Amino acid sequence: MAHIKLNNDNLPGIIGLLDYNPETARPLLDLAEVLLRGPSTLTSAEREIIASSVSHWNGCHFCHTSHGAAAVAHLKADLNLIDDIKAGLQATKVSDKLRALLHIAHKTASGGKNVLEEDILAARETGATDLEIHDTILIAAAFCMFNRYVDGMATWAPQSNEDYRSMGERLAHVGYKA
Amino acid sequence: MAHIKLNNDNLPGIIGLLDYNPETARPLLDLAEVLLRGPSTLTSAEREIIASSVSHWNGCHFCHTSHGAAAVAHLKADLNLIDDIKAGLQATKVSDKLRALLHIAHKTASGGKNVLEEDILAARETGATDLEIHDTILIAAAFCMFNRYVDGMATWAPQSNEDYRSMGERLAHVGYKA
Repeated sequence: MAHIKLNNDNLPGIIGLLDYNPETARPLLDLAEVLLRGPSTLTSAEREIIASSVSHWNGCHFCHTSHGAAAVAHLKADLNLIDDIKAGLQATKVSDKLRALLHIAHKTASGGKNVLEEDILAARETGATDLEIHDTILIAAAFCMFNRYVDGMATWAPQSNEDYRSMGERLAHVGYKA
Repeated sequence: MAHIKLNNDNLPGIIGLLDYNPETARPLLDLAEVLLRGPSTLTSAEREIIASSVSHWNGCHFCHTSHGAAAVAHLKADLNLIDDIKAGLQATKVSDKLRALLHIAHKTASGGKNVLEEDILAARETGATDLEIHDTILIAAAFCMFNRYVDGMATWAPQSNEDYRSMGERLAHVGYKA
């Protein structure tokens, strides 16, 4: 049960929190929209995979599964992608650039100072631009916030990947501001 | 030196990053404004102390010092408050409620699932409301983002407390959106 009184049974994970406080919901949703669906040379699927991976590393089931489901919707992929994100994308074909950016995201999640010049150079060698490196670090940092908000408030969330299919469709095709 | 090309010598810490990407800057500044200066039963000084404390625990010098300086400006206090935040507020008179909320913020920064029902109950016993608990967890979570953004990008920042005095005045009295 959530730590404070929320409409969380009907509105799982962060959705109950956004409903609880519209004043803080607005910039949080604006941030998710620009980071995950705004103009970028990274596809939305790539950005959702970064978001879902960071959420898995942070142990946040709701964010991992919902953003994994958004990547599924963008790619018209199988829901198994959600589990493959947990496994480090062993079964999914992923570019060297995305692998290098995921490494930077992993370092960011473990602490900003852990991102080293050599991690940045390795990403540049795969073709990553300044803006792609910037966006990766900010997505990883933002999910360190969203994950702690969702789990720090002890929100309830459904368990199975299937439970997130329609949410993923909505996040991918309608977005975060609707 | 920052990991990407920024105007960071003139614009230290997060300021160079906000200048680099106005699209992501807008929701980040909107979030800081509502969390730290929006209507609340927690004073802005209390919220800045939470932000500065979390930033210290995360090892982010720029955020710790700038938000400590904002608390100094709100309270018309001595700049030594910035160092006392590092020391766990030994020399500063702080309410039992703020101490209990700082404990929740500390748990949040270490990982959302570390916030336990007993931590929430202890805060309630000091008079903390649902909204104050919510805002504390979201401030702590948000600074886990800001800190990783600032340090993950390897931004430069000035060292001494004195260097942050005018920034603290501006954050306290003009705010985050100007």
